[in-house]
Amino acid sequence: MDLAPTDTQQAYRERARRFAETELLPGYAGRERAGRIGPELRREMGHRGLIGPQLPESLGGGGTDRLTTGLVLEEIGRGDINVGYLPVVGALAGQILARAGDPELARHWVPRICSGEDVVGIGLTEPHAGSDAGAPRLTATRTGSDWVLDGVKSLSFAADAAAVVVFARTSADAGRGRGISAFLVPLDAPGVTIETYPDSGTRAVGRGAAHLDGVRVPADHLIGQEGEGFGQVMAGFDFSRALIGLQCVGCAQQTVDETWEYVSSRSAFDRPLSVNQGVAFPLAEADTLLAAARALCHRTLWLADSGAPHTAEAAMCKWWAPKTAHDAVTQCLLLHGQYGYRTELPIEQRMRDVLGLQIGDGTAQIMKLVIARRRLGRELAP
Amino acid sequence: MDLAPTDTQQAYRERARRFAETELLPGYAGRERAGRIGPELRREMGHRGLIGPQLPESLGGGGTDRLTTGLVLEEIGRGDINVGYLPVVGALAGQILARAGDPELARHWVPRICSGEDVVGIGLTEPHAGSDAGAPRLTATRTGSDWVLDGVKSLSFAADAAAVVVFARTSADAGRGRGISAFLVPLDAPGVTIETYPDSGTRAVGRGAAHLDGVRVPADHLIGQEGEGFGQVMAGFDFSRALIGLQCVGCAQQTVDETWEYVSSRSAFDRPLSVNQGVAFPLAEADTLLAAARALCHRTLWLADSGAPHTAEAAMCKWWAPKTAHDAVTQCLLLHGQYGYRTELPIEQRMRDVLGLQIGDGTAQIMKLVIARRRLGRELAP
Amino acid sequence: MDLAPTDTQQAYRERARRFAETELLPGYAGRERAGRIGPELRREMGHRGLIGPQLPESLGGGGTDRLTTGLVLEEIGRGDINVGYLPVVGALAGQILARAGDPELARHWVPRICSGEDVVGIGLTEPHAGSDAGAPRLTATRTGSDWVLDGVKSLSFAADAAAVVVFARTSADAGRGRGISAFLVPLDAPGVTIETYPDSGTRAVGRGAAHLDGVRVPADHLIGQEGEGFGQVMAGFDFSRALIGLQCVGCAQQTVDETWEYVSSRSAFDRPLSVNQGVAFPLAEADTLLAAARALCHRTLWLADSGAPHTAEAAMCKWWAPKTAHDAVTQCLLLHGQYGYRTELPIEQRMRDVLGLQIGDGTAQIMKLVIARRRLGRELAP
Amino acid sequence: MDLAPTDTQQAYRERARRFAETELLPGYAGRERAGRIGPELRREMGHRGLIGPQLPESLGGGGTDRLTTGLVLEEIGRGDINVGYLPVVGALAGQILARAGDPELARHWVPRICSGEDVVGIGLTEPHAGSDAGAPRLTATRTGSDWVLDGVKSLSFAADAAAVVVFARTSADAGRGRGISAFLVPLDAPGVTIETYPDSGTRAVGRGAAHLDGVRVPADHLIGQEGEGFGQVMAGFDFSRALIGLQCVGCAQQTVDETWEYVSSRSAFDRPLSVNQGVAFPLAEADTLLAAARALCHRTLWLADSGAPHTAEAAMCKWWAPKTAHDAVTQCLLLHGQYGYRTELPIEQRMRDVLGLQIGDGTAQIMKLVIARRRLGRELAP
Repeated sequence: MDLAPTDTQQAYRERARRFAETELLPGYAGRERAGRIGPELRREMGHRGLIGPQLPESLGGGGTDRLTTGLVLEEIGRGDINVGYLPVVGALAGQILARAGDPELARHWVPRICSGEDVVGIGLTEPHAGSDAGAPRLTATRTGSDWVLDGVKSLSFAADAAAVVVFARTSADAGRGRGISAFLVPLDAPGVTIETYPDSGTRAVGRGAAHLDGVRVPADHLIGQEGEGFGQVMAGFDFSRALIGLQCVGCAQQTVDETWEYVSSRSAFDRPLSVNQGVAFPLAEADTLLAAARALCHRTLWLADSGAPHTAEAAMCKWWAPKTAHDAVTQCLLLHGQYGYRTELPIEQRMRDVLGLQIGDGTAQIMKLVIARRRLGRELAP
Repeated sequence: MDLAPTDTQQAYRERARRFAETELLPGYAGRERAGRIGPELRREMGHRGLIGPQLPESLGGGGTDRLTTGLVLEEIGRGDINVGYLPVVGALAGQILARAGDPELARHWVPRICSGEDVVGIGLTEPHAGSDAGAPRLTATRTGSDWVLDGVKSLSFAADAAAVVVFARTSADAGRGRGISAFLVPLDAPGVTIETYPDSGTRAVGRGAAHLDGVRVPADHLIGQEGEGFGQVMAGFDFSRALIGLQCVGCAQQTVDETWEYVSSRSAFDRPLSVNQGVAFPLAEADTLLAAARALCHRTLWLADSGAPHTAEAAMCKWWAPKTAHDAVTQCLLLHGQYGYRTELPIEQRMRDVLGLQIGDGTAQIMKLVIARRRLGRELAP
Repeated sequence: MDLAPTDTQQAYRERARRFAETELLPGYAGRERAGRIGPELRREMGHRGLIGPQLPESLGGGGTDRLTTGLVLEEIGRGDINVGYLPVVGALAGQILARAGDPELARHWVPRICSGEDVVGIGLTEPHAGSDAGAPRLTATRTGSDWVLDGVKSLSFAADAAAVVVFARTSADAGRGRGISAFLVPLDAPGVTIETYPDSGTRAVGRGAAHLDGVRVPADHLIGQEGEGFGQVMAGFDFSRALIGLQCVGCAQQTVDETWEYVSSRSAFDRPLSVNQGVAFPLAEADTLLAAARALCHRTLWLADSGAPHTAEAAMCKWWAPKTAHDAVTQCLLLHGQYGYRTELPIEQRMRDVLGLQIGDGTAQIMKLVIARRRLGRELAP
Repeated sequence: MDLAPTDTQQAYRERARRFAETELLPGYAGRERAGRIGPELRREMGHRGLIGPQLPESLGGGGTDRLTTGLVLEEIGRGDINVGYLPVVGALAGQILARAGDPELARHWVPRICSGEDVVGIGLTEPHAGSDAGAPRLTATRTGSDWVLDGVKSLSFAADAAAVVVFARTSADAGRGRGISAFLVPLDAPGVTIETYPDSGTRAVGRGAAHLDGVRVPADHLIGQEGEGFGQVMAGFDFSRALIGLQCVGCAQQTVDETWEYVSSRSAFDRPLSVNQGVAFPLAEADTLLAAARALCHRTLWLADSGAPHTAEAAMCKWWAPKTAHDAVTQCLLLHGQYGYRTELPIEQRMRDVLGLQIGDGTAQIMKLVIARRRLGRELAP
């Protein structure tokens, strides 16, 4: 084993760290107030190659691996966890398009994702169904050479998206997980209405829903084969759960770093806060758990890059890293006392933002089921 | 032992429950937006006898005991945890004035507290010093028959307060906890500026600071004896920590109740969420811990009512009940999935609000020190 | 509410505390080595009225209430958690016999339980079935005026028991929980073989199994009505779960008390261990949780004494109090460092003993199901 | 990064796994009863190259790296956590002798360690001082060409050790951590008495103390320079804390694997235990935390192999991995119900054994201090 990052990985990491420090940290609260990340920052990030490190060079990406994206994600998360949605969603949508999309379609959209020109979101679930993506009510009906879509899709990235990859039922009588096809839907198409949810956090990202009322897309917007959307398109995409893990770890580690600084510079009862083990020990514990979560996510991405199975590992990253990060941020808030509770410091926003990633892309319950099923099969872990 | 509430206790509890259901639950989010509780609701609450159940009847209170106030607090907490500040702060300020204040001063203010006409806050700590109340920088200097106060005091109830009880140094060379006197300061006095903190939660209460610049109060606004403020005035006031515990327990129990309802009525993967033990068990755990926290708080208030020592027990209530409540609310939010994350449901506001009570009136670290000192003395638990 | 113990309760508590200090603490390890409690100690305990405080005076008991037994249990648990099985099992078996047994049978056995002359155990579950008591394989067949029993029953108290109350199937084709009858089986009857399990702890109690091969008992040894054993006989017996809770709380509180003493008298790095918040805070936390668990158990027993429903509360006591106690004892062991790990101190035995009570009488999983079912019904919490 | 084990690493891992399955698992309980590991097994293990993978080939070792030892340790831990002491203590003592010992002394002892012929223990602490190794009372006095040692040393490996590396004070008036020298003391020297502690677990290893009364060792048994023992000899040895972490992770992972098997093959209430999320989810959680702990330990060993600082990381491994392992084993015991509690299954022994590694080589409190000091320095984290 050699855990040293390659030169390329190290270069990406450092570039991301500089970007996070200079461009992201300062505007974190402002982007929440604005309710969006905005195209300037996105383009700047694309310009620096930080949105699509793992996407093919031929389509504007960096041509590296998933682990490199993970290293980038952690640094971005230190600056603004919400901006981390760009590479996560970019990696997913870009890869789906690059692998299974019509070549022309991919050539149009993937470079725009990588450059930050556009955001292409993922619409996996529907508002009525929580984490259950296997039984969509969204339908797509063939009409001439077009497909017509009707229904509602949840969007984890509503604020700025130009298009979204959705899963729709194309065969009425197929069972759970079957008869489902994937489509790219431009969000400026007639019949699309975007609803933005009033959420506790991640407001710069803007979770919401796309209401599709008779939305017409051309035949080449079908991604993959008809009826094979779920299995074919989603295969191998567990890795994004490890990306989310690192996004959260970065946000929490930044907060822990700031808190070590705070408790060593602020005094109470005539001595620095840090001399109290009751203050220092929770931070030492947070450092430990974040180091472990980071190592787990790195390993999972390496498995994915190696072509090895990593479904259970990705599920571990998804339930545990965001939870650990949320616990750490909450602990840091408390250690700042009344200052931590104010909106002037970024901690309370981070607490709300990181919480959103415990929910998005599947709850802890779903993830534990995934782990159990990898162990025992679906019959013994229904 | 007889754990049945008395008829009076039961009557107060039921009155509070009705008030919480009909008057408090509906306007919870609205009061956050408004940034205050407002005089109408306060007067209505005073009219129903729910602000000062334990204050003397001769001064407009209910003449009952602390446990009765605790039972009221839990019900109020179910409706709006922020409104719970009224009886908590009312119990403290009212009792200080009733016991140690100039009789004329008490006759002026305590009835106004009980009726909801006015809020009298407590200014125990200062912004520079966190939980350390024993070394105030606020000074009070005798000038003729008046006292002149200079300094800054933190306020846990800034939005609507008409006056505040503060602790000021009246003797420069006394050590920690000595030479401190208590005063009542009307907040409309010349030289007072109120700063409201931009906080993550409890916005209807409005934490902040009172800046006192040469504020002049008459001699009868000194509470208790000069130089004895800290010990004399604060003696026996640990019980309010158990009130805070119940305020949080009520908020969390209401959320848990709503979540049982939600998980039994919402389906995923074709069956009610509640049939998943991964969903039902965290709720059963929350029910358990809240029942235990409630019982602990009741016991502490009973100790206080009996005149028995209860400092350690009150500290237990203060660190553990708000933490348990915050954990339960966060868990309930997660069990609601994306709905829990929205501001349309009250859960995310409750999460932010209840978090404030983990900080206010002393952090967990301070409380654990109090417990250790009761066991071992200050030398072995410094 | 009045949480002061009555004079009778206080007298029992003090008597139990003295007995625990002088008679139980010293021989704790010796009774583990001996693998039994032994008749002398049992008789002494019976002589002091500490086995059946709540059993009818007419049958040799104390005629008090369940809460009194609970107060006794906590004190006994401080001295020797295993000896606490005597009042717990005594309360159960004695009450079953007193309420539903043939009067002659009750007059024979209950006084012998109370005096410590005999132990009558409970055989609710079977080795093959874990916590599932509703589908016994033990059969009882009417043969003339006798019943003949065949099968195996788990015993939570095998070492010294003279008889056991068992549940047997008396009707082959009844469903789960039906067609079950209760019997008293003297363990010196022909056809009984006792197997003692080699357990990690509670060795003085001796968990095991009774193999019944054609064991014949007279008709009057049927308890309650034929086919009604499960519902009729077990009704109202949830309270014993709160007794077990207090048995564990006592054991843990004694250990926490000893640990406060240890950490304030032992030095490392030139100062008492206790000045480290990393040492004192876990103890303050243990004090808090044990105080809460105690209050929860008291409340549950009071509900039972009042005739109020208490199934959910008893389940809360059963999963949480033994867990909390086990966590506290383990923490205390660790705080003693290498000394805690030695068998010369009682802590490691307590850790093993208290662990047994997390399993016996139903696992945490069963208890959380019970709580969920009380909330939602069996259909929504299957 | 490349997380694939090298061919050598993989070969060691597989060899260790086979050895653990065939030679270790079967005799685990027997070695506890015997109170020792015994020379046959030790020699067999040495023969397979599993004691000193990282020690120099010229001295009989495998000449690999620390990470390889870590991979071996995890596999050994699956079979018998106690046998894992051999490579851990071997790595430490062997490396101290190989690096800083007299060449002749090293040539005598290191090959005997690697072959399993002898055990050389480490005596870092003293019974009176817990984790505080910086102020030994053991003295070594120069007498002619010999050193004479007087005092007592704790031994984490008393049962079979032939010699021990101890730290003794060679200069009376030096401060904490100074004036300390390291010596090799053969335990068959006149004046040595071995005391074996009656411990809760790790009985095959035999924690105890060596009483040295005027024990005389030749000059070449001084290791490193006089007065430099502590800093010089111990430098770079934090890595063993990550070895201990993997030893525990292996033990726990084996138990978790067995428990997945158990819960999928055993039924209760007419269905496999595993279909209960209340059963499967704690196992999924254990899998997650063990995977994270493993990754953290691997990373720490890789840092050590790279010559990078790893003191904080090693401390993280030491407090968190044994705790996580102990929690997982305890959880597995509970999931086995009454079977888990019996001594017939290995789980309860594992629970006791793994607990010992939370204490040995420094408590959690010490480790958190180490982490805090790496962050803030000794002054801000005293």
